[in-house]
Amino acid sequence: MTELPLDQVRTLLAVVDEGTFDAAAAALHVTPSAVSQRVKALEQRTGRVLLVRTKPVRPTESGEVVVRFARQLARLERDARAELGLSGAGEATRVSVAVNADSLATWFLEVLTRVPQEPRLCFELRREDESRTATLLREGLVMAAVTSSPDAVAGCSVRSLGRMRYLAAASPEFAERHLGGSLREALVRAPVMAFDRSDDLQDAFVRRLLHSRTGASAVRHHVPTSEGFLASVVAGLGWGLIPETQAEPYLADGRLVQLAPDRPVDVPLYWQQWKLDSPALVAVTEAVTAAASGTLRR
Amino acid sequence: MTELPLDQVRTLLAVVDEGTFDAAAAALHVTPSAVSQRVKALEQRTGRVLLVRTKPVRPTESGEVVVRFARQLARLERDARAELGLSGAGEATRVSVAVNADSLATWFLEVLTRVPQEPRLCFELRREDESRTATLLREGLVMAAVTSSPDAVAGCSVRSLGRMRYLAAASPEFAERHLGGSLREALVRAPVMAFDRSDDLQDAFVRRLLHSRTGASAVRHHVPTSEGFLASVVAGLGWGLIPETQAEPYLADGRLVQLAPDRPVDVPLYWQQWKLDSPALVAVTEAVTAAASGTLRR
Repeated sequence: MTELPLDQVRTLLAVVDEGTFDAAAAALHVTPSAVSQRVKALEQRTGRVLLVRTKPVRPTESGEVVVRFARQLARLERDARAELGLSGAGEATRVSVAVNADSLATWFLEVLTRVPQEPRLCFELRREDESRTATLLREGLVMAAVTSSPDAVAGCSVRSLGRMRYLAAASPEFAERHLGGSLREALVRAPVMAFDRSDDLQDAFVRRLLHSRTGASAVRHHVPTSEGFLASVVAGLGWGLIPETQAEPYLADGRLVQLAPDRPVDVPLYWQQWKLDSPALVAVTEAVTAAASGTLRR
Repeated sequence: MTELPLDQVRTLLAVVDEGTFDAAAAALHVTPSAVSQRVKALEQRTGRVLLVRTKPVRPTESGEVVVRFARQLARLERDARAELGLSGAGEATRVSVAVNADSLATWFLEVLTRVPQEPRLCFELRREDESRTATLLREGLVMAAVTSSPDAVAGCSVRSLGRMRYLAAASPEFAERHLGGSLREALVRAPVMAFDRSDDLQDAFVRRLLHSRTGASAVRHHVPTSEGFLASVVAGLGWGLIPETQAEPYLADGRLVQLAPDRPVDVPLYWQQWKLDSPALVAVTEAVTAAASGTLRR
């Protein structure tokens, strides 16, 4: 890569983060025309268009590469300043992490309490489907993510966290009413829960169980929080796949019944992080692997 | 409005929902060129560009008006078919509703269990900040929403649901460590929780308390689930504003302490819905107002 003037790189990042050239100028305490000139100079130097001039602006594919570089640069600089004791009082290292909702509702909460007081850090958690967290990594919007993919995003290392087990469950009344006869017949007709439109877990379960191409029923409720999803199944709105750690107390006292005890669904989870020698990121990674190993299956 | 050919309107909706002309063609069982011709014909008839040809396509501002009309049309048609007994077995009315996370974690869950079995309906809940739910209504992506704004979106009716009360709270150890001296001094320095980047609740609280323009501390953790937010405050990661119904058991047994008992924060909530004579929407509205009146303050 041609050498990139760091003030131009920082300016590009400010424009992307602030959304407009004017807002970036205000944040950087320079004139809007200085911002515009720096971005143009960087585009000439790289020979690429880096920004789509929409409102707010968006980085192009090439722009995303520079933005990711800018964020990593900012991170290294903050770490170096912290090690040199140059951080001001109250300054903490920001660690942005993308996590899927079910992890956030179960084992990941422990991470928040496991991280040591030093180095001081701020968590910036983003909730995203585990199949989409890799996109946030690729765009440099987070520096680490819980993903469902073992394929390392460019510039990232990847390690296995274990498998999150889901159990097909329903309330006893629901099971009685809808699933009295054949389970296979009933699963394609009985109301089903889904997290949101992109939640394919229930459909995939039915397809595997029936060796068919049709998924679960079209009578489908979308409840996009992990706890709301669980509460809806307990209330008898539909059947659904529930993380075993969430389901266990309800199965134990009979508020839920398992529909196919011999058919758990295991979703492998991975931890992907920028390849950066950052003390804050190391501390978070240690807390994540410790919390995962206590809850997820090997 | 000039009369709009309904097949063209439906085609536009399919393109927006499916994201591409090809996918819309597959869904409608017609050729991609038929889809393209219908959209062009509709644009000529309305004299407006209706779609931005990105991937996926996006409706223009004029396009959004037609899309909302298309969704309302589809709804009326489904209701009429249901009343005529023409719905197939297993067909239920889809009711899409945008709800803010704290409502979804507290009083709104009851709605799911309050809705009667008839008319049969599917909930499609979308989780969105209460100040942004109005946008989803405006774009026709939901037919009702819990909003923080009393200003009716075009084509919608609005009613007050009551006020959601938040209490500033922290763990006893956190309060001891960070808030030992003056509350005012401490609140701008002690680590603070936020839901996400657009969560202004804590900052607004500090600004009001201190009559200042600076908000809460820059040492700030983002945890974007209602339950995770609560767990983080209980774990001592930061202080934060917590819905009183969630906070009460923790305050009662001492796992949380209130920071400014005389300064609760009340957020008024409203129910906005399409002006449509739909039995499903009426049933949901009744369940929503009943659940809200049991939990929210008048």
